[in-house]
Amino acid sequence: MMPNKIYVDKIIKTALLEDINYCDVTTDYLIPDSRYGSGRLVSKADGVVCGVNIAARVFELIDDKIEYEIKKYDGDDVKKGDEILSLHGKTAALLKGERTALNLIQHLSGIATAARRYTKIIEGTNATIADTRKTLPGLRPLQKYAVMVGGAKNHRYNLSDAAMIKDNHIDAAGGITNAVTILREKLGHMTKIEVETRNLDELKEALEVKADIIMLDNMSPELMKKAVEITGGRAVLEASGGITDETLRSVAESGVDIISIGALTHSVKAFDISMYIK
Amino acid sequence: MMPNKIYVDKIIKTALLEDINYCDVTTDYLIPDSRYGSGRLVSKADGVVCGVNIAARVFELIDDKIEYEIKKYDGDDVKKGDEILSLHGKTAALLKGERTALNLIQHLSGIATAARRYTKIIEGTNATIADTRKTLPGLRPLQKYAVMVGGAKNHRYNLSDAAMIKDNHIDAAGGITNAVTILREKLGHMTKIEVETRNLDELKEALEVKADIIMLDNMSPELMKKAVEITGGRAVLEASGGITDETLRSVAESGVDIISIGALTHSVKAFDISMYIK
Amino acid sequence: MMPNKIYVDKIIKTALLEDINYCDVTTDYLIPDSRYGSGRLVSKADGVVCGVNIAARVFELIDDKIEYEIKKYDGDDVKKGDEILSLHGKTAALLKGERTALNLIQHLSGIATAARRYTKIIEGTNATIADTRKTLPGLRPLQKYAVMVGGAKNHRYNLSDAAMIKDNHIDAAGGITNAVTILREKLGHMTKIEVETRNLDELKEALEVKADIIMLDNMSPELMKKAVEITGGRAVLEASGGITDETLRSVAESGVDIISIGALTHSVKAFDISMYIK
Amino acid sequence: MMPNKIYVDKIIKTALLEDINYCDVTTDYLIPDSRYGSGRLVSKADGVVCGVNIAARVFELIDDKIEYEIKKYDGDDVKKGDEILSLHGKTAALLKGERTALNLIQHLSGIATAARRYTKIIEGTNATIADTRKTLPGLRPLQKYAVMVGGAKNHRYNLSDAAMIKDNHIDAAGGITNAVTILREKLGHMTKIEVETRNLDELKEALEVKADIIMLDNMSPELMKKAVEITGGRAVLEASGGITDETLRSVAESGVDIISIGALTHSVKAFDISMYIK
Amino acid sequence: MMPNKIYVDKIIKTALLEDINYCDVTTDYLIPDSRYGSGRLVSKADGVVCGVNIAARVFELIDDKIEYEIKKYDGDDVKKGDEILSLHGKTAALLKGERTALNLIQHLSGIATAARRYTKIIEGTNATIADTRKTLPGLRPLQKYAVMVGGAKNHRYNLSDAAMIKDNHIDAAGGITNAVTILREKLGHMTKIEVETRNLDELKEALEVKADIIMLDNMSPELMKKAVEITGGRAVLEASGGITDETLRSVAESGVDIISIGALTHSVKAFDISMYIK
Amino acid sequence: MMPNKIYVDKIIKTALLEDINYCDVTTDYLIPDSRYGSGRLVSKADGVVCGVNIAARVFELIDDKIEYEIKKYDGDDVKKGDEILSLHGKTAALLKGERTALNLIQHLSGIATAARRYTKIIEGTNATIADTRKTLPGLRPLQKYAVMVGGAKNHRYNLSDAAMIKDNHIDAAGGITNAVTILREKLGHMTKIEVETRNLDELKEALEVKADIIMLDNMSPELMKKAVEITGGRAVLEASGGITDETLRSVAESGVDIISIGALTHSVKAFDISMYIK
Repeated sequence: MMPNKIYVDKIIKTALLEDINYCDVTTDYLIPDSRYGSGRLVSKADGVVCGVNIAARVFELIDDKIEYEIKKYDGDDVKKGDEILSLHGKTAALLKGERTALNLIQHLSGIATAARRYTKIIEGTNATIADTRKTLPGLRPLQKYAVMVGGAKNHRYNLSDAAMIKDNHIDAAGGITNAVTILREKLGHMTKIEVETRNLDELKEALEVKADIIMLDNMSPELMKKAVEITGGRAVLEASGGITDETLRSVAESGVDIISIGALTHSVKAFDISMYIK
Repeated sequence: MMPNKIYVDKIIKTALLEDINYCDVTTDYLIPDSRYGSGRLVSKADGVVCGVNIAARVFELIDDKIEYEIKKYDGDDVKKGDEILSLHGKTAALLKGERTALNLIQHLSGIATAARRYTKIIEGTNATIADTRKTLPGLRPLQKYAVMVGGAKNHRYNLSDAAMIKDNHIDAAGGITNAVTILREKLGHMTKIEVETRNLDELKEALEVKADIIMLDNMSPELMKKAVEITGGRAVLEASGGITDETLRSVAESGVDIISIGALTHSVKAFDISMYIK
Repeated sequence: MMPNKIYVDKIIKTALLEDINYCDVTTDYLIPDSRYGSGRLVSKADGVVCGVNIAARVFELIDDKIEYEIKKYDGDDVKKGDEILSLHGKTAALLKGERTALNLIQHLSGIATAARRYTKIIEGTNATIADTRKTLPGLRPLQKYAVMVGGAKNHRYNLSDAAMIKDNHIDAAGGITNAVTILREKLGHMTKIEVETRNLDELKEALEVKADIIMLDNMSPELMKKAVEITGGRAVLEASGGITDETLRSVAESGVDIISIGALTHSVKAFDISMYIK
Repeated sequence: MMPNKIYVDKIIKTALLEDINYCDVTTDYLIPDSRYGSGRLVSKADGVVCGVNIAARVFELIDDKIEYEIKKYDGDDVKKGDEILSLHGKTAALLKGERTALNLIQHLSGIATAARRYTKIIEGTNATIADTRKTLPGLRPLQKYAVMVGGAKNHRYNLSDAAMIKDNHIDAAGGITNAVTILREKLGHMTKIEVETRNLDELKEALEVKADIIMLDNMSPELMKKAVEITGGRAVLEASGGITDETLRSVAESGVDIISIGALTHSVKAFDISMYIK
Repeated sequence: MMPNKIYVDKIIKTALLEDINYCDVTTDYLIPDSRYGSGRLVSKADGVVCGVNIAARVFELIDDKIEYEIKKYDGDDVKKGDEILSLHGKTAALLKGERTALNLIQHLSGIATAARRYTKIIEGTNATIADTRKTLPGLRPLQKYAVMVGGAKNHRYNLSDAAMIKDNHIDAAGGITNAVTILREKLGHMTKIEVETRNLDELKEALEVKADIIMLDNMSPELMKKAVEITGGRAVLEASGGITDETLRSVAESGVDIISIGALTHSVKAFDISMYIK
Repeated sequence: MMPNKIYVDKIIKTALLEDINYCDVTTDYLIPDSRYGSGRLVSKADGVVCGVNIAARVFELIDDKIEYEIKKYDGDDVKKGDEILSLHGKTAALLKGERTALNLIQHLSGIATAARRYTKIIEGTNATIADTRKTLPGLRPLQKYAVMVGGAKNHRYNLSDAAMIKDNHIDAAGGITNAVTILREKLGHMTKIEVETRNLDELKEALEVKADIIMLDNMSPELMKKAVEITGGRAVLEASGGITDETLRSVAESGVDIISIGALTHSVKAFDISMYIK
């Protein structure tokens, strides 16, 4: 699986334009154009790597004669000290691309590593980890990609590709039943409908009207367990809100299908990767 | 202080295009265009708010008839429960802008809150917290702004506006003295020159050749203290690398001038803010 | 329902930059800036109008002092002679925007009118008309919007938001069962899976593995009727390929759920609308 | 003749960004990156092909290692069953580019085929078919190119490169004579001036003041014949408005020089081309 | 006459993004947001002003509450000391827009002033001054506009809107006659054809084949005079190449119709305008 | 040293999109695609060349099979008649790129030549020539690059990367001392602070508060000499305003460090270079 190359090039170019107005005042004066070198991206921690091709592409867009060898592929587990990517080419190109390449691969590997970690926590349960629309402006495609690479799933991409009925929608439509009925009538056959519920009555109404997915918003694991029983497989159940590392396992054990976690993309801890240039 | 409006509009538009291909399939079918409502952004934690104008601008770009009142300004301390921004206008516009506005303000407030926290930790010392070029693609202007709002300082903006001489540059130039001398000769009078050093010999050489700033790379607080003594105010000293919450205070007490922290922008924890729509 | 304003402005600006390099050599020299006038967009045929707000927006982007009144809303039926939009403002602005506004509203009304026409043909059956990804570059959001306005449904938006398993995928995966199983395992809970089938055996296999939607590719109405019987409501059935105005009704009467028609967006007949400027 | 490569790449990228947010959820999971295949674009109808290089370029922008052979060149007549383009490369790249490539080549071939058809209808007369500014937003350069490929001519590109004096201009200027005189005085030597006329008196006035081109707006073939006689070659005569397939030949036989047809670009019927991937 | 507002906004935004990454480090810290002031753009020389609306628009795009009064309109003669534009609003907005506004208005007024000066030099002759395609990247629309404002004429806008047959074209086509004949056959009725000639034989051939415009390339005024006689009004004659301030009048007196001058746009002397902020 | 390739490609594409809407109506019809030729860029004057790689890149972006040899590198002195760049490839590509390549290289070489000329005038003094923010919209990165290539220095890049305290700032802050003190407190350690002064009292105040750079605004050489004495090396002194070719040497001999000249970028005389295509 690979993110859309057109988009990747666009985001890399945005980053390189931010980082270099017209020249690199250090490298352009100190590194002769004739100097060649090697670069190695090395993991400084244990986790899941993501964005290796993208990091390599940063250097290619600076100098299309750069050669590289991918040592770890997106989704691979890495240990501290593992080599991820090796590069060879003009030293100036390596130095100019270093920061942008690291900024990208560290962010994406941070997401993939977190996705894998959450997935591990709930291993053996029925539940799956999913992301949210809580992404950073301009980075949604890459962030959603990293979530998949880490082994979690993508929730809806945006407001256009699936319906999520929240309390304001329910109020305006005059209840869950009305809201779902209207959308079922209007939306196409590829569009799933999810309803946010805050208690078992709302859950029952959503089940009755055959919502595809029902979100259990900020419910306790105990309440979720009841919800699972009531549902009996008639809809996909998604737990959301207030889930912490500590509560995640018990949420999963409640029997819900999906646990969506905003922190996957809104609170990313960069994964530590260094670049060594020789 | 305010971030460049042209840039702000651009990044908001990017986010809104990511989030809405052509319509919001839920809101567009369930919320009548004639329905008006109020929205309130409320802090769910204690910290520093940043991006209030930007959040308001999200709604304005969706519907220029939205009215809003700013309750907390960028840089204000907020407590859990504080209202930050109140809005009034079409309910559909409030619902469509909610996620994008929150994504922006939560990220920026997360940065500002961290900047304030680090600054508090070193209070009373000579040192100042600074950011780095470890930013997210397309977001550097906003991230650097949030750092300032939080009370920390900006390091160089990019590779073009200040020189940072690293080991590869030193190797290629034949030593620190040569490298600084060449750049001094080539660069304009507005451009500062920083040299990365890993031991006291390199520090001394950088002092001799009058580098404006000298980075003490991955040194222990003890070694930094010696570096401060040797320097005696002849250059700005910047501590960088491997600094944790635990070591930060002792680094600051070593007497260095600047402590640069990549995590400020590369590992942002979103600050929790909710939006209530009525 | 309204298309994303950020996107609408972008496509209008693209059109206006194509149509005016730097000035309108006729209007700029012949129409005094002080001259004001009225414009009326009038339907020259019977159909469904779409893009009225967008047409008005063209003039606003040329001169934000233009005033307008919408006479027919998107989705309204219009008869030849009906006034759709009236405008008042600088004559020069009316003249400069005329062509761009008409190009947009005529194209979108053409789509909406065709969508309504197809929908009428199959009235009384269970089937629904849907569009495809056979759209024009840069215009997908507007075209999909017009399809909805005309009363037909949108198929998947793009390659990212739903899976469509075609013969090449089936070959590579080693059969329909494998293909669906792999995707079910990998994809998120919001993503529907459709399988293309060319005969009843493939249909049965797709049913067995519980594909959400099954496409009946280029089947005769008779074969489709059998497919409907076999399916018995266990999946959504989509008829596609080689459907003409003549065969459409009989396809619908076969009992399929969805009939997707590429011509809705790839072969649009502009709906005739004139602008009169006084 | 070839359309501007910079523009072509831009429109293809726009299309590919519309069609793939971040991945192709079907192909990325089912087609191994190591799988290679062949693709063939084959005509399903008789007509004129246009956009072959552009279709090939779609695949190249997805994967620059794709190899292709052009079998039919832009402007070539094709019969149902003719191979137009053969491709070889990663199967995944072929599948991802298929729809975008077809959307482009089908639209442009539709235009070229219509242009050739109209040209055939008036064969043997003095008249030439021309397009108009009735193009689709963002597609004008490609549409105008396809018109040329089909053997018809391009009218003015936009409001900046030639003057077209309509009734509003005439009113504001105080008559045809004034309008032409003012423009003649103001405009450069490369800019032609056309006048719209609705009767023979206006035609005579336009001839008197030496308009370069005179449009005969919505005149009957009989009236046009008189206009041709009166003109006697002193200006180029353009027939426009209300011309149908049925009346086209008689319009051409009236002796006019140019017949402009908006439908060439505003009501395009996609030309049927399929892609077979093995 | 006014340049395309969409384009104007785009170029201003480009300039403001270049000039302000995220904040104005001087103004944002020293000028309170509550401080209001007045600004005046004043001419420091005698000439023709151009770009007044554009300068005002710069401030509007920074702060849409800025008020302004235009004192001199595009094309007006100004004397040293004349006020051109007065502004009132936030002092910070005035300071942030000052440089960008001046950069634009000084460049455009420089072009308009030069156009007026050249036009004055040839006053009383038949000749007209025209620009060329020797413009600066991204600025062609504005530069061409300024040429018109100064009273000179625009040559072709670009390679697409008129034909210019040069020696390479003539060689490839096998002579002037062939080249013109081919283009006459291929090009539309709105497209003029110009031929470059270097001697009277070429001129005669171009006349014979009825080129619309004939360029006399680097000819002496004497030779041009002969060319004018030979031509006898059968074509527009354009003098081009090696024309200096000293020779311009004699070139004009040779009787040619057009004198094209690249320096109008490729060697612009900024017109001196200052901004005073109180 | 080389300008950012991403930016260079962007500005070239902007220029090529301005110059070719969809085709080159002359070249596309007259030059067979199979025709190959050679092109030579030759200097028509003495000066410093800048933009050679950029000129070559123009042709590469039109046709990536173009081959070229660089004969003179950016910064090289050239004499009239020197070959700068030789190209070989499709004649059509050479013709289409000619104007855009020349427009870029002539502008940049004009800047570099002027920079070298000013530098020569002040040779042997302590002073250095610097540019300003008086650049053309969209071209600042290239213009600043050309200034460096010519041997002069770059002043601050934009409003974000250094502080320049002008009279409005001083008024608002309540004096130079306050203004500098506030900024020193707020700004990061990489940001220099410059103060504009108009007399010796202001200079003394700026020295007292340790401004990094002090601008001597519109002072006579005599006054500057006094300023140099008073300063005694405690700050960098920058002369600015009203400096002409005639006064430049005496300004430099006053002992100031920097002389900033807006004309370097706002009033560029294109350097004469021709292209010969065979």
